[in-house]
Amino acid sequence: MRDNKEKDKLLKSLRRVEGQVRGIQNMLEDERYCIDVLIQVQAARAALTTIGLTILEQHAKGCVVSAIQHGDETIIDELLDTIKQFAR
Amino acid sequence: MRDNKEKDKLLKSLRRVEGQVRGIQNMLEDERYCIDVLIQVQAARAALTTIGLTILEQHAKGCVVSAIQHGDETIIDELLDTIKQFAR
Amino acid sequence: MRDNKEKDKLLKSLRRVEGQVRGIQNMLEDERYCIDVLIQVQAARAALTTIGLTILEQHAKGCVVSAIQHGDETIIDELLDTIKQFAR
Amino acid sequence: MRDNKEKDKLLKSLRRVEGQVRGIQNMLEDERYCIDVLIQVQAARAALTTIGLTILEQHAKGCVVSAIQHGDETIIDELLDTIKQFAR
Repeated sequence: MRDNKEKDKLLKSLRRVEGQVRGIQNMLEDERYCIDVLIQVQAARAALTTIGLTILEQHAKGCVVSAIQHGDETIIDELLDTIKQFAR
Repeated sequence: MRDNKEKDKLLKSLRRVEGQVRGIQNMLEDERYCIDVLIQVQAARAALTTIGLTILEQHAKGCVVSAIQHGDETIIDELLDTIKQFAR
Repeated sequence: MRDNKEKDKLLKSLRRVEGQVRGIQNMLEDERYCIDVLIQVQAARAALTTIGLTILEQHAKGCVVSAIQHGDETIIDELLDTIKQFAR
Repeated sequence: MRDNKEKDKLLKSLRRVEGQVRGIQNMLEDERYCIDVLIQVQAARAALTTIGLTILEQHAKGCVVSAIQHGDETIIDELLDTIKQFAR
């Protein structure tokens, strides 16, 4: 992650997800209604998807472009393996 | 969540996800390789999916069955709205 | 599927997906740009997700409610197995 | 799609999906059990995901590498937009 502004935004999002996950634990302990808990689980999951896609974007624009310019195309295989994980 | 054993398992999984999310923050701060960070993000996301499906299962087997037996079918609409969130 | 109007709508959507899938084959044979092909693949996939969720909805509101009212709760397990398929 | 063997495999997969989608229509018209229909919908959807990822792979290894080698990095933005579609 070479872009510091982007890194700070990601760290902030991750701290928010951490808080959400802690909040879900409290909801479970307080016997809150399942559907309300599920909505929070889904929100945390969606936030992680966005975070993952942002990291993927930084990687593709940084490392991938640079590696290909230096003649290393194997980085594309690694990128595709990761995308396959996210798309399923 | 009426099943305490299931609740304890969920709380344990959520604490593990919380630790993963904190670990991802450290990885970002330590400038770790994007793909390694992404693999952890994907693992945390997959854990939340499993947690969400477990809560959904408890809800369906508990509240949903009970509500329908008491003549309340609107609980099915609520369940479907939540499933739609998870399926996309 | 007891609701005929809903069934007709589903059949119409499925015929449209069938046409899209045939269109994608033509695009491949005409050597069309990958990204344009991918957009059509994604559109067909999203249409199938909507179709699946509609069938799930009909099933939950019909068979599931009726089975539970008749004392058969095993239908919930079957429903959950299917939801797990869609959520991943 | 520059690789003809890969293109033939994709066309074969797409014809199979087309057949599946036609089969789902017959299942609906024959009033088959919803869960059996859903399993087929999910199978067709999973097949389209695999097809999409294969096209993405061909594109990344072909067009993307070639464009970057020729100094065009905007192709990465286009790739990322498409990945975002698939990951949600």
